[in-house]
Amino acid sequence: MSAEPADAPPLGGPLAIIAGGGDYPPLLARLATGRGHAVFVAGLEGAADPDAFAPSDIQMFRLGQLGRLLEVLRRREISDLVLLGSLPRPSFSGLRPEASTLKYLPHFARAFKGGDDHLLRGVVDFFEAQGFRVHGPAAIAPELTAQAGALGRRTATTEQKALIQRGFSLLSALSPFDVGQAAILADHRIIAIEAAEGTDAMIARVAGMVSSGRLKIAKGDGVLVKAPKLGQDLRVDMPAIGPRTLERIEDAGLSGIGLRAGQVLVGDGAALAALADRQNIFIEGVP
Amino acid sequence: MSAEPADAPPLGGPLAIIAGGGDYPPLLARLATGRGHAVFVAGLEGAADPDAFAPSDIQMFRLGQLGRLLEVLRRREISDLVLLGSLPRPSFSGLRPEASTLKYLPHFARAFKGGDDHLLRGVVDFFEAQGFRVHGPAAIAPELTAQAGALGRRTATTEQKALIQRGFSLLSALSPFDVGQAAILADHRIIAIEAAEGTDAMIARVAGMVSSGRLKIAKGDGVLVKAPKLGQDLRVDMPAIGPRTLERIEDAGLSGIGLRAGQVLVGDGAALAALADRQNIFIEGVP
Repeated sequence: MSAEPADAPPLGGPLAIIAGGGDYPPLLARLATGRGHAVFVAGLEGAADPDAFAPSDIQMFRLGQLGRLLEVLRRREISDLVLLGSLPRPSFSGLRPEASTLKYLPHFARAFKGGDDHLLRGVVDFFEAQGFRVHGPAAIAPELTAQAGALGRRTATTEQKALIQRGFSLLSALSPFDVGQAAILADHRIIAIEAAEGTDAMIARVAGMVSSGRLKIAKGDGVLVKAPKLGQDLRVDMPAIGPRTLERIEDAGLSGIGLRAGQVLVGDGAALAALADRQNIFIEGVP
Repeated sequence: MSAEPADAPPLGGPLAIIAGGGDYPPLLARLATGRGHAVFVAGLEGAADPDAFAPSDIQMFRLGQLGRLLEVLRRREISDLVLLGSLPRPSFSGLRPEASTLKYLPHFARAFKGGDDHLLRGVVDFFEAQGFRVHGPAAIAPELTAQAGALGRRTATTEQKALIQRGFSLLSALSPFDVGQAAILADHRIIAIEAAEGTDAMIARVAGMVSSGRLKIAKGDGVLVKAPKLGQDLRVDMPAIGPRTLERIEDAGLSGIGLRAGQVLVGDGAALAALADRQNIFIEGVP
C-alpha cells in the first residue's frame, strides 16, 4: 500500500498535474484549486483536452518534450506533482524527442523493458530523481476515493460486509501473482475473479450466467469487491470505478459494491452516489 | 489431495460402478474389466445408458432405491465401489423412496443442507458407514488421468513448464477460497482465472480477447493449467478435460495444457492425444 496519508499533505509551492486523458485530471484540478492549491496543468497532447481544465493555468506538451516540461516546472518553482489520466497512443511525431529530452532517454529505455508496472515505477523514479515529490491524486483530494462508510443512502448489511472482507482476503491472496483487482461473491461462494478481461467484462459475464439461468443469485447475496493489489503504487496506479461499472450491476444480480476505503477512485462521488441510489444498490468503503 | 495410490488397489471381490451419465462410467467398466476385475454396474435411471456398458453385468436403479442397491451389493459380496458420472436431474418419481430406503433419509437430509461439496462428502461417508470402500476412478484405472509427461507428441518447454508451475501455485493460493480449478497464463502474466463460469467459458473468454485484438499472446507463450483444489476429494470430484476443452484452445492462442499429473481426468487418453497432435498443442502431466 501507499504510505500516502489520507489528508492532503502540505505542498512546497504550486501543484503540477501532469494530465493525460479522461475525467479525472480536470476533476482533480478543480478539487485542488478548491482546497487552496495553486495548480499548474501540464497537459499531454493527444490525451488531455485543454478546454476541460478552464480556468486552470495549462500548457500542452508532447511526450518528447520532457526536457522542456522539466524546465517549465523549475522556472515555476514547482516541486510537487501528480501524474494522472490515460496516456496518448504514442505516435512517432509525438515521441520525437527534443534536444533537451535526449539525455533522459536511457532511463526510460530501461524502464520500458520491464513492462507496464515497471514503466510506471520508472516514471515515478525519474521525477523523484529530478527532485520532485510525486503524490497520488487521493493524497491531494481524498474525496476522489470511496471513504469508509456508504457513498449513497444504502449501506451494506453485516453479512454483506463479511462477504466483502472475504473478497478482500481473496484479492490479497492473489496479489503475489500480480492479478486480481476485483471479484464477485455471492452466498459465500466466489463467482468471478477479474484478470485480463477487466471489471466491466467480469460483471457482464456474471450477468450472462444469471440471464441464462446457469447461475442463481438470491436477492441481497451478491457483491462486487474491488481493492488495489498489495504493493500497488497508489500514486500512479489506483483502481477505479465509475458510472460504467454500475451499468450491469443489476443484471448481474448484485446488491452492491465493496471498495477498500481510501484506495479506490470513485471520481465524482456525489454523482455516483445518486446513480447508486437510483439503482437501490450500496457502494461501501470498507477499511 | 486423495490418499489413493497411483496403482490399482487390490480389491476384496467384484467392483461395483455406481454409474451416472456421460462417457466415463462405461470407459471405466471396460478398463476395469481389462485389468481383470469382475465388474458390476449399478446404473442410475435417467442418467446411465445400459447399452453403453455391454457386455458388463448391469442393473438399473432409481435414486429412491438405495435400500435395494445395498441389498444387491451385499448379496453379490461386493465391498469396493466407484461413484462416477453425471447425476440425473431428480424427478419426484425417481426420488420416491422405497420402504427399504426410508431409514437412510435423515443422513441425506443432513448432507443436502451443506451444499454440493458437503453432499458428495455425505454420500461417500454413507457408503463407508455401510462398510464399503469407495475408490476414485483413477485408483482403479490410472490411465483415465494425465500421467507425468506428454500425452501426445508435443511436450512443454522448460519455460512452459515454469509457467505451468506458476499456474499451480496460483490455484493452490485460491484453494482456501474453494475456487480455482483452472487458469490461463501467458508471458508470465495471469490472463484468466476460472470461477463459476467453468473452464470452457474461460477459454472462450480469452479467445474473444485475442480475436478482438484486446489481448496479444505471442506464439508459444500461452498455457491452460488445471489441477484439483487442495483437499478436494478425488474419489468423487476430480477435475477433467476432454475434446471440448481443446475446441477453442487455438482460438485463445494457447500452446498447450498443463495438468497436475495423476489428478485430472482425460478419459480416452489416446483419442485426446491424437486430437492434440492434430492441433499441434501439448497436453502435459506435471508432478
